[in-house]
Amino acid sequence: MASTIFVQSSFPSKCLNKSLNTHFLPSYKLHDSLSFKPRIAFQKRFSVRAGLIEPDGGKLVDLHVAEPERELKKREAASLPRVKITRIDLQWVHVLSEGWASPLTGFMRESEFLQTLHFNSLRLGDGSFVNMSVPIVLAIDDSQKERIGESNRVTLVDSDDNPVAILTDIEIYKHPKEERVARTWGTTAPGLPYVEETITNAGNWLIGGDLEVIEPIKYHDGLDRFRLSPVELRQEFERRNADAVFAFQLRNPVHNGHALLMTDTRRRLLEMGYKNPILLLHPLGGYTKADDVPLSWRMKQHEKVLEDGVLDPETTVVSIFPSPMHYAGPTEVQWHAKARINAGANFYIVGRDPAGMGHPIEKRDLYDANHGKKVLSMAPGLERLNILPFRVAAYDQTQGKMAFFEPSRAQDFLFISGTKMRTLAKNKENPPDGFMCPGGWKVLVEYYDSLTPSDNGRIHEPIPA
Amino acid sequence: MASTIFVQSSFPSKCLNKSLNTHFLPSYKLHDSLSFKPRIAFQKRFSVRAGLIEPDGGKLVDLHVAEPERELKKREAASLPRVKITRIDLQWVHVLSEGWASPLTGFMRESEFLQTLHFNSLRLGDGSFVNMSVPIVLAIDDSQKERIGESNRVTLVDSDDNPVAILTDIEIYKHPKEERVARTWGTTAPGLPYVEETITNAGNWLIGGDLEVIEPIKYHDGLDRFRLSPVELRQEFERRNADAVFAFQLRNPVHNGHALLMTDTRRRLLEMGYKNPILLLHPLGGYTKADDVPLSWRMKQHEKVLEDGVLDPETTVVSIFPSPMHYAGPTEVQWHAKARINAGANFYIVGRDPAGMGHPIEKRDLYDANHGKKVLSMAPGLERLNILPFRVAAYDQTQGKMAFFEPSRAQDFLFISGTKMRTLAKNKENPPDGFMCPGGWKVLVEYYDSLTPSDNGRIHEPIPA
Repeated sequence: MASTIFVQSSFPSKCLNKSLNTHFLPSYKLHDSLSFKPRIAFQKRFSVRAGLIEPDGGKLVDLHVAEPERELKKREAASLPRVKITRIDLQWVHVLSEGWASPLTGFMRESEFLQTLHFNSLRLGDGSFVNMSVPIVLAIDDSQKERIGESNRVTLVDSDDNPVAILTDIEIYKHPKEERVARTWGTTAPGLPYVEETITNAGNWLIGGDLEVIEPIKYHDGLDRFRLSPVELRQEFERRNADAVFAFQLRNPVHNGHALLMTDTRRRLLEMGYKNPILLLHPLGGYTKADDVPLSWRMKQHEKVLEDGVLDPETTVVSIFPSPMHYAGPTEVQWHAKARINAGANFYIVGRDPAGMGHPIEKRDLYDANHGKKVLSMAPGLERLNILPFRVAAYDQTQGKMAFFEPSRAQDFLFISGTKMRTLAKNKENPPDGFMCPGGWKVLVEYYDSLTPSDNGRIHEPIPA
Repeated sequence: MASTIFVQSSFPSKCLNKSLNTHFLPSYKLHDSLSFKPRIAFQKRFSVRAGLIEPDGGKLVDLHVAEPERELKKREAASLPRVKITRIDLQWVHVLSEGWASPLTGFMRESEFLQTLHFNSLRLGDGSFVNMSVPIVLAIDDSQKERIGESNRVTLVDSDDNPVAILTDIEIYKHPKEERVARTWGTTAPGLPYVEETITNAGNWLIGGDLEVIEPIKYHDGLDRFRLSPVELRQEFERRNADAVFAFQLRNPVHNGHALLMTDTRRRLLEMGYKNPILLLHPLGGYTKADDVPLSWRMKQHEKVLEDGVLDPETTVVSIFPSPMHYAGPTEVQWHAKARINAGANFYIVGRDPAGMGHPIEKRDLYDANHGKKVLSMAPGLERLNILPFRVAAYDQTQGKMAFFEPSRAQDFLFISGTKMRTLAKNKENPPDGFMCPGGWKVLVEYYDSLTPSDNGRIHEPIPA
């Protein structure tokens, strides 16, 4: 992959081992102080400071056990009641361990769970709010609860029984599945991918507590070098002297409409007076539904797109966001934005129907396409983040390329939906010239070609070790 | 009814006509400044001031048209597109008109609706939050939307086509019924009373805007004299020199356990140093489900209970809270509390499973019995309100009266559920002596006796004119 664009494994590995221990207090140089007119009325007293945005709660959480103490912790872990966790639980341990959910210090206890369900935010000791819209919880069943007994600490073990973390000062409380689903997704219709994967058959209890993660989580899938933590991303942005960081969340192949949007955002930031806005191109790397393109293929596709020079390597950082995907629309987009604050982004690009999907049983989108950006712009705890609404890009047949849609000449534009794109790739057909770079398209075609017919066009991403 | 206890029709009627116009700015005498240790950790910077609490947003909303302008408004109303509203819509107009939902100035526009659904709160212009947990919205159907056309104002008319209010600066947006229900109730199970009554068959659009209410809402059911507005309640509390007001929401007959609780709360407030805590006994007067005891019978029952002198007339104000009932548990209890702030209450008593009910299709309570008070204690915008958790009262067989439950001698106590109470009253049997005063019990027996057998034990409250 293009080393100038991707942050490679050459990135100092000691950073992955958290030589910065327990908490990370950012101390970035401040660049020219710039102010600009905020977009949203209630943000009128908010002024943007150049330099990296502070993490939620003022400091990044780091839940890893310091290296000298690891052996001791492993011995302790062996003596505690064990809770076996799933692949997706492990992804959440990863997310929590690196501080993406700062100031959360572990799986939610009931007071945090209830605040998340009802208010999409957590109140801190000083009375201020941080955003927290999706429950980050760990389910256990009756027999696990019984095995834990009166213990105040448990060891979380992976599918191979390797100890992953110790959960301390635990609290076990009821898992109100129906209510959790209704309040998080705004529906209880059967067929929600994350619900079926993680909730429907999960235990009737939730266990909260503080995490002590024994070693940094690795997946050994060839992509770990792209999984930069918030600390590492902040270091990278600082190294590049970023005075603005704009994040682009994606879970799909990148086409030239996305590229246009990202390039145009940088142009707008330069116009606002920023000297060096850096793009965080941040594909989601955790659980995705079966018919999404798997991470490994998406990363190949992104590589090709970037090799084509559609985006400027000097001003783009590509990294993997380790969170699982909820497909919870307006609720989830807040999580996507909040986590990027912790990674140093102060601008967040939001498009049509973010984190949305079709209704599982009705012939319509699950969410109103505009609710995501509206909810995001009003969300408690995200006041410091600048929301950049997506301009609609479509294929301009007169220019033979992706361009911002102009309603005055609507007939010139072609909208190529994700479904249409997938159908073309599956049938090894080509999209119109200029929709996606040929190398990127080839990866998509190869991916669909790799699916055996017996899978009926559906494939699960291989489970990381 | 006992004039010393109930605030009677002798209460100056001009207050009902809002001689205080448009906005009410409270200017209460401040009593001895008292401070006490707040119950909830995050409220540590909060100190209680003696005197009446400020309404949400700093001033009480009054949406009535001033008397001199009424004729003009009526003429205008006749010229506008009409929207026919239901009995429950009218109750919401009533609620809004008197400022119970301050600072809301009418039916919610989409930005308020979304904030309510996702955050249970509204952000004000200064960045602060007020609580707002239930959507106060008005549904219209396709044909009504078409009739409104491009008009910016509509007239709301009652079932007899009498103009009730003008809705101005309107915004029409989609009514996402499933999502509204899921996020408000935490379930979409069929059989939720408010949902079946007002949402399932409602239109696919919501219309928001500012209200101009032509005349104060009256029901002409003999109970209007008990429907004191927040302004009138505040005047009454001031007249009584209240230095603390504690509100007790109820929608059921009062038994001696309730009375014990209210008396005990006053004792605790006196211990805290308050000189004159006043109880607002505040039965809900809007829509209730078919198997609840209707308002008129509850008021008769409350009268008898109060005549018995179980509560001190000098320190008790009985009034009707005009809101309809959602039965939305932890979500709704916030609304119940918030509305009472606007009426001048700074203490709110919360019990087990507030605003809860059985799950409509599963054999369990819909909500965890403890979630209501937990959610209430953490809710944004309710920081100024002191939450007083309910102590469990039960029938102490050794004393022959209702007493606070003591787990150490659990065998002495008898729990008499609402279902048990209703069954006894239906069968004209008596509860144990000391459960409820005989006069109050007699009203209950009479009520169930009045139900014709053909109704199968269920009766709808007569629809007010």
